[in-house]
Amino acid sequence: MRMRMAELSAESGVPVATVKYYLREGLLPPGERTSPNQARYSAAHVQRLRLIKALTEVGGLSLASVGTVLSAIDGGDKTPHRTMGVVQDELAGTPPEVSGEAADWAFELLDGIARRHGWAELERKHVTVANVVAALATAKELGHEKLAERLEEYTDLALRVAELDVEVVMGLTSFDKMIEAGLIATVLGDRIFTGLRHLAQEQLSRKVLGRAP
Amino acid sequence: MRMRMAELSAESGVPVATVKYYLREGLLPPGERTSPNQARYSAAHVQRLRLIKALTEVGGLSLASVGTVLSAIDGGDKTPHRTMGVVQDELAGTPPEVSGEAADWAFELLDGIARRHGWAELERKHVTVANVVAALATAKELGHEKLAERLEEYTDLALRVAELDVEVVMGLTSFDKMIEAGLIATVLGDRIFTGLRHLAQEQLSRKVLGRAP
Repeated sequence: MRMRMAELSAESGVPVATVKYYLREGLLPPGERTSPNQARYSAAHVQRLRLIKALTEVGGLSLASVGTVLSAIDGGDKTPHRTMGVVQDELAGTPPEVSGEAADWAFELLDGIARRHGWAELERKHVTVANVVAALATAKELGHEKLAERLEEYTDLALRVAELDVEVVMGLTSFDKMIEAGLIATVLGDRIFTGLRHLAQEQLSRKVLGRAP
Repeated sequence: MRMRMAELSAESGVPVATVKYYLREGLLPPGERTSPNQARYSAAHVQRLRLIKALTEVGGLSLASVGTVLSAIDGGDKTPHRTMGVVQDELAGTPPEVSGEAADWAFELLDGIARRHGWAELERKHVTVANVVAALATAKELGHEKLAERLEEYTDLALRVAELDVEVVMGLTSFDKMIEAGLIATVLGDRIFTGLRHLAQEQLSRKVLGRAP
């Protein structure tokens, strides 16, 4: 399948002006030149445009983050593991600054769980670690340590979810598809699971938490 | 504990100018007037400021969303169930627009699961439903239906997480604390669980997905 710019736009649902912008920014690789002013695009271009759309519109990533993620996908030493890592970092954003006693307490708690599970040593500066620590420390400062008391159970469930994620990625036959699936399992997977959790909360809490005092 | 503006600021870690702005916007209730230009604030004001900080800095909510959430907390017919619902809606944001075959397919899939679980009927316009549908439909359009094939298993795990969430909220003795806990379990709970899932993904995928082809 080879197509002109107008067909590429129609097929992907991305406006021509936006496609041109992505080409200029290097988010979309150039098409095959057929004349100085004309190029032909392939099914891979359609897929790349859909991916950019998914990352921005559904994943909520900025175009700068999309660029970082796509470079990781296209890079030479790529593995699905590394792709997922880069995507995680971009999704995590800048962790809120939390320091002092509550933050130390939160890191110790998380680190203890990591040790019991035999995980690689946690680095406090790692964005994901910093995000979890900030949220736990904030909960404690607000006087809600209950959430933290159940952290071991939350971690067990998070591990089961991650096992499913890895199985989804492993179930693919092509290596490039696995790389892409690592990306999708992270970006769309977060959205889907958080949504399912909210729907489940709603069903459960309707019964037990729906009463006024 | 009664304190002046300067002490309130020091205690909560929120700058005086910001405290004044929150007072003007009605996010923080006024203090007790002691003279035309002076007021005294209480421990409840400190807690409210910490909550606003948690919602904006850790939860990533806009001040407009914080206002909506706080009105729900302060409202007359409040229950932890309703508070969680309002918070969920604010966190969900505006779902991306996805329509056509893939969206219909995604809704059918989710609706089938809800029916099997005996949940209240799902409304397609509900922001959380629309978010999950958009993410599933996008995965399908990208040729990654594997994620959707495991949706039943993801839902089972989401239910277990939601059970924990509800237990955390139920474990509190004061009704006002339960309302606040519903808020915190949702805003901070999402952050914590997503972070744990990413850490677990990293540990698991290092072994099985860390290899180049």
